Amino acid sequence: MDRALELAARGPAHGPNPRVGCVILAPATPGIPGRTVLGEGWHRGAGTPHAEVAALADARARGHDTRGATAVVTLEPCHHTGRTGPCTRALLDAGITDVVHALADPGVTSGGGADHLRAHGVHVTAGPRSAAALDLVHTWHHAVTTGRPWITLKTATSLDGRVAASDGTSQWITGPQARAHAHAIRAQVDAIAVTTGTALADDPALTARTPTGTLAPHQPLRVVIGHRDLPADHRLLHDGPPPLHLRTHDVGDVLAALHHHEIRHLLVEGGPALAGALLAADVVDELHAYIAPVLLGDGPPAIPPYGITTLATAPRWHTTTTHRLGDDILLIARRTATHPDPDTEEA
Amino acid sequence: MDRALELAARGPAHGPNPRVGCVILAPATPGIPGRTVLGEGWHRGAGTPHAEVAALADARARGHDTRGATAVVTLEPCHHTGRTGPCTRALLDAGITDVVHALADPGVTSGGGADHLRAHGVHVTAGPRSAAALDLVHTWHHAVTTGRPWITLKTATSLDGRVAASDGTSQWITGPQARAHAHAIRAQVDAIAVTTGTALADDPALTARTPTGTLAPHQPLRVVIGHRDLPADHRLLHDGPPPLHLRTHDVGDVLAALHHHEIRHLLVEGGPALAGALLAADVVDELHAYIAPVLLGDGPPAIPPYGITTLATAPRWHTTTTHRLGDDILLIARRTATHPDPDTEEA
Ligand SMILES: NC(=O)c1ccc[n+]([C@@H]2O[C@H](COP(=O)([O-])OP(=O)(O)OC[C@H]3O[C@@H](n4cnc5c(N)ncnc54)[C@H](OP(=O)(O)O)[C@@H]3O)[C@@H](O)[C@H]2O)c1
Ligand SMILES: NC(=O)c1ccc[n+]([C@@H]2O[C@H](COP(=O)([O-])OP(=O)(O)OC[C@H]3O[C@@H](n4cnc5c(N)ncnc54)[C@H](OP(=O)(O)O)[C@@H]3O)[C@@H](O)[C@H]2O)c1
Repeated sequence: MDRALELAARGPAHGPNPRVGCVILAPATPGIPGRTVLGEGWHRGAGTPHAEVAALADARARGHDTRGATAVVTLEPCHHTGRTGPCTRALLDAGITDVVHALADPGVTSGGGADHLRAHGVHVTAGPRSAAALDLVHTWHHAVTTGRPWITLKTATSLDGRVAASDGTSQWITGPQARAHAHAIRAQVDAIAVTTGTALADDPALTARTPTGTLAPHQPLRVVIGHRDLPADHRLLHDGPPPLHLRTHDVGDVLAALHHHEIRHLLVEGGPALAGALLAADVVDELHAYIAPVLLGDGPPAIPPYGITTLATAPRWHTTTTHRLGDDILLIARRTATHPDPDTEEA
Repeated sequence: MDRALELAARGPAHGPNPRVGCVILAPATPGIPGRTVLGEGWHRGAGTPHAEVAALADARARGHDTRGATAVVTLEPCHHTGRTGPCTRALLDAGITDVVHALADPGVTSGGGADHLRAHGVHVTAGPRSAAALDLVHTWHHAVTTGRPWITLKTATSLDGRVAASDGTSQWITGPQARAHAHAIRAQVDAIAVTTGTALADDPALTARTPTGTLAPHQPLRVVIGHRDLPADHRLLHDGPPPLHLRTHDVGDVLAALHHHEIRHLLVEGGPALAGALLAADVVDELHAYIAPVLLGDGPPAIPPYGITTLATAPRWHTTTTHRLGDDILLIARRTATHPDPDTEEA
């Protein structure tokens, strides 16, 4: 399963589909410890073969017979026909007799694969490393179970929570390492959202750039939220594919539209009105707070009043990581405590 | 010198005097590598023997003859009669012929020890590990060179820079680990300052307590700044020794008074008016920013407007350390970059 997880991690973090890895093992030979690897595969993103299909193809390409073999896969094999056929069918066709999977598939349409395989006589074992497998696909898992994207709210502030000085100057509060990190995150998400207010004020490109300034291979969908039009010469209307403009202030409408577009991971970069609306609806799953050691004393705050009047009712976050980025720090916190993988804990 | 630094670190971080360690080494024996340690000593705080005197006493107590021996000391031996006699005299009386010291003594009255020893035929070598020695005594060194205490400004805020929710509730923004850490810092400083405004609003004890709630052995001087009187039943007037009440808003007057009281390290715990006045005067040397992953959106900020109107002129800080304290983080930053010990760098 460790190898299957390694393979899964080669897939893209973004995209509508989960990252999955699969290893096909030869049947055990009595008296000989260990199992021969017949094939390996991983999912490379929507429209490409699923991990199981890729691993079976690899086994065939290596000239192996997969009858009686075991498929070790990080996610329960899917049981629906989407852009590709169901993996359950591919495994049965290949004569696989044992399946070991980590995470159960929570999908309403794609789930049920294990039951289907069992009904066809396959021995299915669920469970090992499910937390590690979930970690690899948590945005996808969140989206298919809740019907809305995993939302990361990014802020880049002074130590006293300001996004700009009192005259509005904000370039740059954080240093080059923090900005490069933020661009690397952009290249991993499905979409970036800003308000019309911020789009109009800052004319941002919202592209993911590498440290040398070139465009990253994956560019997230750019989403602008608010009623106003962008002027015809706005950068968002020229550099790259057209942005998705959602002319609403309703958080539910925004999230439904993004889910319809199969956005699993949304990065919110501002402005304050959007951050406040999402926090008030308690739909922010993760904070990425870049904090620069500078005190401004004044200037616009990152977070507007959003309905918290007393400390006792303020939602609490759980810090998952802190990164030092030059003089700045990045604090990553999640709304819900993440439970460590019990397998990993024992190690 | 490493051993002398270890000994120095046993002394108290607080108090008017620097932490100093001293090792007395027997003269080298030709053909035999290494030097025998005759005595060790460190300074335990004002009114107790200096490190050199303690080390010489230790050598005598062990029955050693110190004539022709070498004193390895973390700070240039002092040359003035304060609460104790000059160390230069003690070293000469003991027949020490070689002195190796790390940091030079910057004191106007205490300095000049090396020259005096040289004039009396002692071979004095300056230099090794001077940055590590400075690190041990940086608040004292700062105070004797600038004539004012080293100032640490502490803030305990939400991720968006608020010290309380909009209804004023502030207990507790940070968690128990952060609060315990802040108490441990109180036990290392010479004085803690708050405004009359904060003293009146919060009725704080400003004591250093251990995690079990008992008083720490060292209690800093409590300083209240502002014109108003504290009511006769105020906690600061009852628990422990009386506070120092400085009835001024003038930062220069405050710092001169504290220097007169031999305060080397001042911890400023608020309120905003004092933080702003010190920042405006650019006399804050270090920030201790405890940050809790909670977003309040509203409520009083830790730092009031203090004259920064544009980002380019905002003073920049250099992050020295970050500590994870439960879900909270502590970011420590200094106004000036600290240069690593060149000796340590080579290792
Ligand atoms: N450093 C940072 O982290 C950072 C991040 C973001 C923004 N900023 C700064 O913030 C400034 C923008 O300020 P701004 O006053 O224009 O605020 P804003 O919050 O960026 O934009 C306000 C506008 O957002 C739209 N909107 C979308 N969803 C909304 C909702 N649920 N509720 C209310 N309005 C919603 C509305 O536009 P319509 O009228 O078009 O509907 C509203 O007028 C810029 O200067 C930018 O630099 C800084
Ligand atoms: N969580 C935290 O980190 C933290 C820290 C500190 C305070 N707080 C909160 O802040 C609140 C106190 O607010 P506050 O409005 O009373 O503000 P404050 O800043 O605590 O006190 C203002 C008063 O400070 C005195 N002062 C001393 N030096 C001054 C100077 N250089 N310039 C101006 N005034 C000076 C003046 O009192 P006189 O009129 O007597 O001269 C002034 O009225 C409390 O509720 C407290 O909980 C929170």
